[in-house]
Amino acid sequence: MSSESTIFGIHAVIEAVNAGTPIGKVLVRQGLSGPLALEMMGLLKHHGIPVQHVPAEVFAKFGQRNHQGVAAQVGAVPTLQLEELVGQLQAEARQPFLLLLDRITDVRNFGAIARTAECAGINGIVVPAKGAASLGPDAVKTSAGALLHVPICRVGSLKMAIGFLREQGIRIAAATEKAQQPIYTASLRGPLAIVMGAEDRGISPEVLRMADMQVQIPIMGQIGSLNVSVAAGVVIYEAIRQRKFQ
Amino acid sequence: MSSESTIFGIHAVIEAVNAGTPIGKVLVRQGLSGPLALEMMGLLKHHGIPVQHVPAEVFAKFGQRNHQGVAAQVGAVPTLQLEELVGQLQAEARQPFLLLLDRITDVRNFGAIARTAECAGINGIVVPAKGAASLGPDAVKTSAGALLHVPICRVGSLKMAIGFLREQGIRIAAATEKAQQPIYTASLRGPLAIVMGAEDRGISPEVLRMADMQVQIPIMGQIGSLNVSVAAGVVIYEAIRQRKFQ
Repeated sequence: MSSESTIFGIHAVIEAVNAGTPIGKVLVRQGLSGPLALEMMGLLKHHGIPVQHVPAEVFAKFGQRNHQGVAAQVGAVPTLQLEELVGQLQAEARQPFLLLLDRITDVRNFGAIARTAECAGINGIVVPAKGAASLGPDAVKTSAGALLHVPICRVGSLKMAIGFLREQGIRIAAATEKAQQPIYTASLRGPLAIVMGAEDRGISPEVLRMADMQVQIPIMGQIGSLNVSVAAGVVIYEAIRQRKFQ
Repeated sequence: MSSESTIFGIHAVIEAVNAGTPIGKVLVRQGLSGPLALEMMGLLKHHGIPVQHVPAEVFAKFGQRNHQGVAAQVGAVPTLQLEELVGQLQAEARQPFLLLLDRITDVRNFGAIARTAECAGINGIVVPAKGAASLGPDAVKTSAGALLHVPICRVGSLKMAIGFLREQGIRIAAATEKAQQPIYTASLRGPLAIVMGAEDRGISPEVLRMADMQVQIPIMGQIGSLNVSVAAGVVIYEAIRQRKFQ
């Protein structure tokens, strides 16, 4: 069981199973107890997934992870071609609601953003094939399993992806501290792709230039910027408010 | 320099200095470079704060922290009596906008929430004296220094604090997945205290019962809940929208 294809933690394993992810063997620490562990064991049994009870020492090889005494061999995060995703949405007459991540390499931030995207019903997350956070087990764990539900589209170039999305009538909203327009006065309705950039470097200038609008989260304090996963949550949920609560 | 009173990272040191925090000596790794490091060095010089250049090995004793080659001895996070804070706000005829954290013990979540609170102009964060995240250097670092700007009120009992706030005409909005009312249809204007609970256990039942309203963030996906620091951001910024953009 290589740690490359391993998922850790009870919650993440439950989510993986519920998402229909192909799972090999699950290692469970001997003596593991608690209601959530019981729920997981029932679920694994129901799905006929083999469980192996092992001594605590076996988990030592996984290092400092918060594995909660559970490690499962999983398949990869499902990825999809962007053209295919947009085609599917159009065929189902659904309004595309996408998220583009530019230069976000931190796995924890990426996982937290994927979790928010899943909760908000985002149709897909677009990331560059190079220079994005890895889609490995740490990302799945931080996302609380969300990465097994939200389609990820890896694209060769974010610029080309944006060009394609605009051709399909999807508006591009780039969230940047440098924008003048607050998210609250911008229209985030209709077919939409929200772009978030890394905390330190922001969205790359060429991507920013291609956006239909630049929007900012109003900042009142002295620190000057939010954590990127919090910022993504604020922008995505303002879009939800405009789309569903107005 | 004990790690108990030490702050790590360039951003956090800059924020600490700008916040007027009493700082002793700052250890800087020999050869540290980059625009942000230069900015920090200029700031330290301007404030007459002693700097000691040390070999990289000196940082080994700080363990796995992301110290960026910078460690500063700092004073404590400023704390304030809740009565004093509310009294000050009333004397200045400002509408109290507070945040109460119930059972949030994870330092990273606490730091990220404090950062959001500072950005949103929250007047103070109320935490129980027992069972809250520590206000040490890790919290300050995760908060990007925000904890040096936002007053923290440690109270013996959250229930008593809520009783006091209600007497002062401050409404209590508890954010919970179990609520029926979305944040978007609730009124989050006027003197307000938002209560957030831990991800696993939520807000304690007795605190929930004392709230004037229970509000939820609408969840569309299958995961069922947001990361608590993202959830805090979504609720706090919906309050900002209602208070400033309507």
